[in-house]
Amino acid sequence: MLIGSRAADRAEATAAELNAAASVDTVAGRDNAACAAESDIVLIAVPWDGHADLLTGLKAELAGKVVIDCVNPLGFDKQGPFALPVAEGSAAQQAEALLPDSRVTAAFHHVSAVLLADLSIASIDTDVLVLGDDREATDQVRALADAIPGMRGIYGGRLRNAHQVEALTANLIAVNRRYKAHAGLRITDV
Amino acid sequence: MLIGSRAADRAEATAAELNAAASVDTVAGRDNAACAAESDIVLIAVPWDGHADLLTGLKAELAGKVVIDCVNPLGFDKQGPFALPVAEGSAAQQAEALLPDSRVTAAFHHVSAVLLADLSIASIDTDVLVLGDDREATDQVRALADAIPGMRGIYGGRLRNAHQVEALTANLIAVNRRYKAHAGLRITDV
Repeated sequence: MLIGSRAADRAEATAAELNAAASVDTVAGRDNAACAAESDIVLIAVPWDGHADLLTGLKAELAGKVVIDCVNPLGFDKQGPFALPVAEGSAAQQAEALLPDSRVTAAFHHVSAVLLADLSIASIDTDVLVLGDDREATDQVRALADAIPGMRGIYGGRLRNAHQVEALTANLIAVNRRYKAHAGLRITDV
Repeated sequence: MLIGSRAADRAEATAAELNAAASVDTVAGRDNAACAAESDIVLIAVPWDGHADLLTGLKAELAGKVVIDCVNPLGFDKQGPFALPVAEGSAAQQAEALLPDSRVTAAFHHVSAVLLADLSIASIDTDVLVLGDDREATDQVRALADAIPGMRGIYGGRLRNAHQVEALTANLIAVNRRYKAHAGLRITDV
């Protein structure tokens, strides 16, 4: 697995931390362009502020690749989180517009970073909604989610319905605050 | 429990059907204005097309009442369901704008009508996200959801975050089509 960053040395340092934490040696670091060029499936996990610039700069390297967008365009004020308007409709649709030669999907919006980082937790109790218009690509991403203990990858609709999945993160943050939880979603009857 | 309809005789007929189906005599019918005037908590369940007109006409009767909006503004085309834009942000925020003297909440967006109507089903496996800016009102609505076997009422954020909860119904319809299910949501870690 490759970790990308603007500077290769920062990516390498993060990869070394992950290898040490998990007692593996399977993670390596690259600058973002090399990371994208060498990968088949690329997860875009950046702050919304830098989303468009990052993708614009990686258009060539991401051509033909399965791209997973998990970015949640949110704002925060005194009343808590809220969904930011996005001209393209959603972060995922912005990715699709900027990466016409990539196979863009949207997934992993609601996975708690706190739980992921806690290696004492053996299983994370959540489903991962996977959106996209490319059946093969969404099937691959669903399989990735299935590989994480406790998670299931569930097809969640076309990319044009990504906005509400991204924005729902604001509601889950409200749940977390009220219930002192790391809330996730399960889809019932599936 | 009162059922409202534009015409009192239609409401009375539906109430009689419900009483017969459930072997009770606790449901009665009224025209919408009488229904709203006699109730403490009013669930607005109408097609999006008629939402604004209905609420505008019931402003006086709904003053001071807890209003639960469960309306999902959706469109459908060849590619399936999608969220309609709403000038006020969401159906719930439109209700709040039209009913300034009511205590508007949003809830019950994702409950399957098919499952609700099937009296052979003893319990419905879903949580109900309850949104609103009035703590006492959302607590009352959560208690209503808790009273339905299998359901939990979970606080899901302020009314300004209602759009994505309404729109998520489009994703659940996509889930239902793919998996031949009546999908619901569970919030994990709560």
